[in-house]
Amino acid sequence: MTSLIELGQRAKKAERQLAQATTNEKNEALALMADALIDSTDFIIEENKKDTDRAREAGISDSLLDRLTLTADRIAAMAQGLKDIVSLPDPVGLVDSMWTNDAGLKIGKQSVPLGVIGIIYEARPNVTSDAAGLCFKSGNVVILRGGKEAFNSNKAIVQSLRQALGQSTLPTDSIQLLEDTSRETAREMMQLNRYLDVLIPRGGANLIKAVVENATVPVIETGTGNVHVYIDQTADRDMARDIIVNAKTDRPSVCNAAETLLIHKDVAEDYLPVIEDALAEWNVELRADNRAAAILSESVPATEEDWATEFLDYILAIKVVDSLDEAIAHINQYSTGHSEAIVTSDYFAGQRFHREVDSAAVYVNASTRFTDGFEYGFGAEIGISTQKLHARGPMGLPELTSSKYIVFGEGQIR
Amino acid sequence: MTSLIELGQRAKKAERQLAQATTNEKNEALALMADALIDSTDFIIEENKKDTDRAREAGISDSLLDRLTLTADRIAAMAQGLKDIVSLPDPVGLVDSMWTNDAGLKIGKQSVPLGVIGIIYEARPNVTSDAAGLCFKSGNVVILRGGKEAFNSNKAIVQSLRQALGQSTLPTDSIQLLEDTSRETAREMMQLNRYLDVLIPRGGANLIKAVVENATVPVIETGTGNVHVYIDQTADRDMARDIIVNAKTDRPSVCNAAETLLIHKDVAEDYLPVIEDALAEWNVELRADNRAAAILSESVPATEEDWATEFLDYILAIKVVDSLDEAIAHINQYSTGHSEAIVTSDYFAGQRFHREVDSAAVYVNASTRFTDGFEYGFGAEIGISTQKLHARGPMGLPELTSSKYIVFGEGQIR
Repeated sequence: MTSLIELGQRAKKAERQLAQATTNEKNEALALMADALIDSTDFIIEENKKDTDRAREAGISDSLLDRLTLTADRIAAMAQGLKDIVSLPDPVGLVDSMWTNDAGLKIGKQSVPLGVIGIIYEARPNVTSDAAGLCFKSGNVVILRGGKEAFNSNKAIVQSLRQALGQSTLPTDSIQLLEDTSRETAREMMQLNRYLDVLIPRGGANLIKAVVENATVPVIETGTGNVHVYIDQTADRDMARDIIVNAKTDRPSVCNAAETLLIHKDVAEDYLPVIEDALAEWNVELRADNRAAAILSESVPATEEDWATEFLDYILAIKVVDSLDEAIAHINQYSTGHSEAIVTSDYFAGQRFHREVDSAAVYVNASTRFTDGFEYGFGAEIGISTQKLHARGPMGLPELTSSKYIVFGEGQIR
Repeated sequence: MTSLIELGQRAKKAERQLAQATTNEKNEALALMADALIDSTDFIIEENKKDTDRAREAGISDSLLDRLTLTADRIAAMAQGLKDIVSLPDPVGLVDSMWTNDAGLKIGKQSVPLGVIGIIYEARPNVTSDAAGLCFKSGNVVILRGGKEAFNSNKAIVQSLRQALGQSTLPTDSIQLLEDTSRETAREMMQLNRYLDVLIPRGGANLIKAVVENATVPVIETGTGNVHVYIDQTADRDMARDIIVNAKTDRPSVCNAAETLLIHKDVAEDYLPVIEDALAEWNVELRADNRAAAILSESVPATEEDWATEFLDYILAIKVVDSLDEAIAHINQYSTGHSEAIVTSDYFAGQRFHREVDSAAVYVNASTRFTDGFEYGFGAEIGISTQKLHARGPMGLPELTSSKYIVFGEGQIR
C-alpha cells in the first residue's frame, strides 16, 4: 500500500506534464478511460460485490446499499460521463484579458490548473470516475480518498482508469487512490499542504465539518443545503404548490431539496391545506409553528432545531410569517447559504429577495432543484460550493482552475 | 474592551446594510473618513508616540521603528489613499454574464461582497486605514487585528474612521478593531467561522504560517516571495544587469524583490563580473554555488537553505545552471510561487518560461518589482496572493468579492 507522502510525490511529478497537456491529449486519454471502464465491467461488478456483501452483513440501510451498488448500466453511465467531459471546452490556457500598463508591459491573465486536488468522499463509487474525469480535463492531478465501504469498488475503478492512462501520452499518476482509508490518514491528507493545492470534500454534513475543522490545505466547502421556499401574499396558488412540492419531493436526499416552507400570513389559511393535500401523496411529515399548525390538519410542532436542520428526507418545516422582512431575516439566520426561492407576483418583492437573501442561488418563481451544474448549462459539476471564497454555487470545469499573470516586457525596471 | 464574539455579532448586524449600500453612500463615507484622518492628525501622532516610545525602549531595529512611525505627511498619505479608493469602480453588483437555460430560467451571475473579512497584520499602522478602505468600498465589514506594537496608533486611526462612519449613512460597525492583541485571541479569531467569511494575513512569513496552520476560517495566503531572475545565454547583458539590480536593490524588504539569480553557464563568466560590480554599489552580499564562486571576486558559499530563503535584505543567492530546464526545475522546486523573471532574446525560451514556471506572475524581460496592484493598473492592492484558490497575484477590489446566482423563473419545476 502506497503511503500518502509517496502519492503526493508522484502527484507532484505528474503535475507539470498534465498541466501543459493539450486538449487533444486529455480528450484522447478520457476516451481511453471510458473504454476501459466498459471493458472492466465484469471485474468492477465483482469487486463491488465484495463491498455490498460486507455492507449487507453490517446491516446498512437500503438507500445506502443502493448508492453503493454498481450494475452494468451504472458503469456504462460512468463511461458516458467521461465521454461527456470530452466534449466540454478545455478551461485551461484562456487569456481572458490582456492589457498594457503604464510601463509598457503587456500583462495577460491566463487560466491554469489548480495543481493537485484532493477529493475526500463517501459511499457512492461513481464519484470516483466523475471527479477523476473533471479534475483530469481541467489539467489537475487528483488524489482520491473514498470511504472504506466502497474500497474494493473504488480500487477497481481507479485501476481501470490508470490502465487507460498507461496507454495514453499522459502520466498514469494523474489519477491516484489513497488505499489507506483510516481516519488518521484522512487527517494527514487534510494537512498535506506540501503536495495538495485544494481539498474538496463531497458527502454528508459530518464529513464536511470534519474537513473544514481539520484541514490546513485550502478547502472548498460543498453541498450542505438547508433550503427555503417563501410563498408571499401575491403568489399564484398553483405555482406555489407546484414549486414547494417539486422542491421537497422530487429528490429529498439531495442538497437542493427544500427543507423549510415560509408562507405569508395572508395566504396561509387558503394555501396551506392545498399544499398539505399535495404533499400527502408523498407522506411528507410536516413540522409546523403554532400558526401553521392551527391551519394544517396534521402536523408535529417544529422545534428551534428543525429550522436549522437539513432533513434530506420527506420532512418539511413550515412557518407562517408576517412579512417579506421576516422571511428574509429567517432565511439569513438559519440557511446554509445554498439555495432559496420566493414565489411571488410582486416585482418589488422579487427584487428585494434577490438582493437581500445571502445564498449561492436565489430564485424568483422557480424550484430550488435547479441548483445544479447540468441544469445551469455547465455540462458538469464537481460540487456545489456553499462558501464565498473561490467559487459559490454549482462548480463546473472553470472553477477547477486558477490563474497566472504572464507578462511581456522589453527590459522594463521600476 | 469588546470581546471578539461581540465584534463578530456587531459585524454580522452591519453586514447586510453595508452589502446593499450604493456606490455613492460608500464614496461619501470614504471621503468623510479621509477628512477625519486629517482632522485627527495631532491625536494620531500623539497616540503613535506612545507606541514608538515603547518600541524604542524595547530596542527594536531602526527599520521597524521607521515602519511604525506616523508623521503628518504619512497621515496625509493615508487620507489620500482613501480618496483614491473613492475613484475606483465599485466591484459589487455587476452581473457579468446572464443566460437562459433549457428550462427557460434566466440565470445571472452577480458580484457580491465576501461578507465579513478578518485582517491580521503586523507593525505598519497605515495598513489599518488602507485595508479598512478597500474592504469598505467592496461592501465588506472588516475586523482588524493589528500587532501590539502599533496598538495605540491603530486604535486612534480606527477611532477616527468610526467617527466618520457615525456621520455617514452606513453602519459604524463596518470597521472594527480587535483591541485584545493576545495570541490566544488571535487564534480564536482564526477559528471564528460563525462570523468571518475570510481571513487575510498581512505580514512576515511566521505570521502567515501561523494563520495557515491554525485557521479554520478560509484564508487567503499573501506575500511570501522567494523570487528568481534567470539570465539565459541569449540575454542582452545590460538588460540582464539592470533587471537583476532593480529586482534586488530597488526595495529589498518587499515580497517582489529578487532573492536568487540563476544564470546560464555560457554567459556566466562574461556577465557575472558586470553584475557583481553593479551590485557592489549597494553592498549586496553574494551567496554563490561553486561555479559562480569561481567567477565572482567575492562571495560566500550558498547553502541548501539559501535557495529556499526569502532574505528581504541586501543578499542574493547565485547559481550557474546548464540549461533552461535546470532553471525552471530549480524555480519550481524552491519558489514560493510569487514572481519570477527570465531575461532572454530567445522567443521560444520566453514561451517556455511563461508556460512552465508555476508562479503567480511570470515575466519575460522585466523586473519582478512590477508585481503590485498599482503597477498592474488595479488602483489598489489588498495583498499579493501566493495561493491558487480564489485569487492569485496582486489582489484589487474585485478579488474582495464573491458571487451569487440570481435566477428569474416563471414557475419552472424539475
